[in-house]
Amino acid sequence: MQRRNFIKNTATIAAVGLSSEVFSIRGAGFFNDKVRIGFIGVGARGLGTLELALLRKDITVTAICDIDPITTAKAVKAVSDAGQKPPKLFTDGPHAYKKLLEQKDVDAVFICTPWEWPTPMSVDAMKAGKAVACEVAGAMSIDECWQMVRTYEQTLTPFMIMENVCYRRDVMAVLNMVRKDMFGEMIHLEGGYQHDLREVKFNDGVNYYGGGVEFGEKGYSEAKWRTTHSVHRNGELYPTHGIGPVGSIINNNRGNRFEYLTSMASKARGLNKYITDHPKGGKDHPNAKVNFRLGDVVTTNIMTANGESITLSHDTNLPRPYSLGFRVQGTNGIWMDVNKSIYIEGKSPAHKWEPADTYLKEFDHPLWKKYENDASGAGHGGMDWFVMNAFIEAFKRKDPMPLDVYDHASWAAITCLSEQSIAQGGEPQAFPDFTDGKWMNRKPIFALNDIY
Amino acid sequence: MQRRNFIKNTATIAAVGLSSEVFSIRGAGFFNDKVRIGFIGVGARGLGTLELALLRKDITVTAICDIDPITTAKAVKAVSDAGQKPPKLFTDGPHAYKKLLEQKDVDAVFICTPWEWPTPMSVDAMKAGKAVACEVAGAMSIDECWQMVRTYEQTLTPFMIMENVCYRRDVMAVLNMVRKDMFGEMIHLEGGYQHDLREVKFNDGVNYYGGGVEFGEKGYSEAKWRTTHSVHRNGELYPTHGIGPVGSIINNNRGNRFEYLTSMASKARGLNKYITDHPKGGKDHPNAKVNFRLGDVVTTNIMTANGESITLSHDTNLPRPYSLGFRVQGTNGIWMDVNKSIYIEGKSPAHKWEPADTYLKEFDHPLWKKYENDASGAGHGGMDWFVMNAFIEAFKRKDPMPLDVYDHASWAAITCLSEQSIAQGGEPQAFPDFTDGKWMNRKPIFALNDIY
Repeated sequence: MQRRNFIKNTATIAAVGLSSEVFSIRGAGFFNDKVRIGFIGVGARGLGTLELALLRKDITVTAICDIDPITTAKAVKAVSDAGQKPPKLFTDGPHAYKKLLEQKDVDAVFICTPWEWPTPMSVDAMKAGKAVACEVAGAMSIDECWQMVRTYEQTLTPFMIMENVCYRRDVMAVLNMVRKDMFGEMIHLEGGYQHDLREVKFNDGVNYYGGGVEFGEKGYSEAKWRTTHSVHRNGELYPTHGIGPVGSIINNNRGNRFEYLTSMASKARGLNKYITDHPKGGKDHPNAKVNFRLGDVVTTNIMTANGESITLSHDTNLPRPYSLGFRVQGTNGIWMDVNKSIYIEGKSPAHKWEPADTYLKEFDHPLWKKYENDASGAGHGGMDWFVMNAFIEAFKRKDPMPLDVYDHASWAAITCLSEQSIAQGGEPQAFPDFTDGKWMNRKPIFALNDIY
Repeated sequence: MQRRNFIKNTATIAAVGLSSEVFSIRGAGFFNDKVRIGFIGVGARGLGTLELALLRKDITVTAICDIDPITTAKAVKAVSDAGQKPPKLFTDGPHAYKKLLEQKDVDAVFICTPWEWPTPMSVDAMKAGKAVACEVAGAMSIDECWQMVRTYEQTLTPFMIMENVCYRRDVMAVLNMVRKDMFGEMIHLEGGYQHDLREVKFNDGVNYYGGGVEFGEKGYSEAKWRTTHSVHRNGELYPTHGIGPVGSIINNNRGNRFEYLTSMASKARGLNKYITDHPKGGKDHPNAKVNFRLGDVVTTNIMTANGESITLSHDTNLPRPYSLGFRVQGTNGIWMDVNKSIYIEGKSPAHKWEPADTYLKEFDHPLWKKYENDASGAGHGGMDWFVMNAFIEAFKRKDPMPLDVYDHASWAAITCLSEQSIAQGGEPQAFPDFTDGKWMNRKPIFALNDIY
């Protein structure tokens, strides 16, 4: 494919306001061969992503990196079961991924590793010219966010933050409604991660979920690493599922941006109680002495440049049904996820909620209409299919990534800013402008049509 | 009734931790005659309260004060219709209430006046030895809160803040469940005032609600005074319906207290849009030029001494169904008002909401069980009956008021602290300790049994 066609193919997108970044991406033209993928991290999340990738006809899995022999063996088997050639393996310690990045038959990497690793791995991958599909996490420091941004700007290697909830069917229908001005001007939004993770944070050291009160060295899978953050850190540790969809709706970094936040953490009781109440735990279990710092409910308020307020709730230590708690409220109406209801002035009966269902069907996003069958069966209600499809299709077209390094930086920064605010008794914390002012002129590109 | 009986009657309450205040209240013994009430303010709210009072056999309405002849006439007629003697009238300007306070045949006053007046009127009433039933409002200044507290402490005249939502049936059932430890240790609570008040803030100058875009001089009833606060003030203007019930649940000022808050206001769009969109308004209407400062959604986070976090939402300018948005969450479960659901670990199916209804019936508060019939038909689903009954019964018994001056001060202060936080870009604001340290030893007294 030649430069002329590339320009033609991107013209539609440019017309709706594509930044100049795309024209600088290395090379040009459609990617005609299969995309050759290296997987870095094939644990619980990575293995699921790998299995989803193996269903696609435009992907070849050429390399796998993981330090756990059990999970690596599962991944190798999955590739083999899919009828693909055995991938190269990189298993020799936490820096083995660097060898993977040297491989010429790797075009892009999926990074699904514990929270300490997405930044150094992404930075190294971008420097090596391997496109990055990066699993979500909060940042360890604001500097990590800057490293991601600066490395991308210096290398222009494609980078996408794989926030699947941006593609949740109801969320996309509401985005569609917002764009059709059903809710009027945006005023207040809410989201969160309200998910009882006690059986994720503790297990028996063998199975993924529950069955014991072990974590760290004696835990398995996420309990091995994730729980440590609940011991030592107090803040909005996992902001992206809540803030991602909200960011798309209010055009974050594209005519708008997060300006400052305040954060408040309740006392921490849930994890200790889980250990002491558990039949395999009890007051004399060594983990009953651990001082968990993470407040059971962390509430964060974000102010945007355009004056919307946003509330995020992080609630992972207590018994409760799962809810991301979305609320989208404008001058003309409101959607709430918790009661699955919508109110639109002039349409809904006065002062009465309507079931959201009817609206969500009517305003089903064009992407879901088109790809519903392809997505069915994929993880997390199909949204995992969409986020992977977006990365692969944007990569093949050399389009800019729909959820990019600036999205990542401003979302992941919430974690550090929230920790700082709590440590300072609720003091507001200003967001860095990771775009260096480009947010004023950048235009929305996320899910504008039914392409990806 | 003699001192001996008084002691006997208060013994039960003292046993559960009554403070020593009660023993200092002027006089002693049951109040055997009818309670003679003066009404200060008989507008929309005051008239409803008056009509409710006239249904009681233990109340005589002896005086009425209001500056509006229309509403005064309605009040006089209501008293006459109830077969009571014509009350004395005090209608000569905003300070006419002072004459009412001089009347010997007034034992107690109900104060239902615009937000600027409850403090000076309550202070004067307490000084005059008239027990005060004070309608709820946010404070104009922190000093107002101190005036209320100090005047009460100097006079020991009974003072009750008439927060009816503390008596809402579902709220009291949940309080009952909390006291039975169904939710475990309290962790996070939410409440608010999410009520589309656009037809309260604007009317046609004749009727109470809607029909035009007038306010201030040209408005009628609440539109005459309430809307002015939306023009000039930006904060949590009406905190008590949300924070009152939460305060009872977490034992505010009784072993716990509010420590600090942060507040955030969205942009202000709803009121201007209402005016410009209204058939009697439009872009050329003079009120379309008014710059309303009150953010459409104001979110406030409060931290307590015992480590619970509380989120309040004030949302009165946008089209939306009414909701106080309660959430009560502990180490063992959660109740949410929005989806009318409860989750209790070990009882509810794992990770699934249950309809709250079954629990709310099973744990119906003893007061509601006993007085359901008496309350039926009273304002706001019956809760108005309970709050009035509590005031009258506590007064007759010379018991301490169940919602007292410290409750009032700490609730009303939220308004000023919220304004300050917003004015300072979200800076945390410390609550004064209005109890001067007494909160550490005071015990809960609200609705401990089925007496009132």
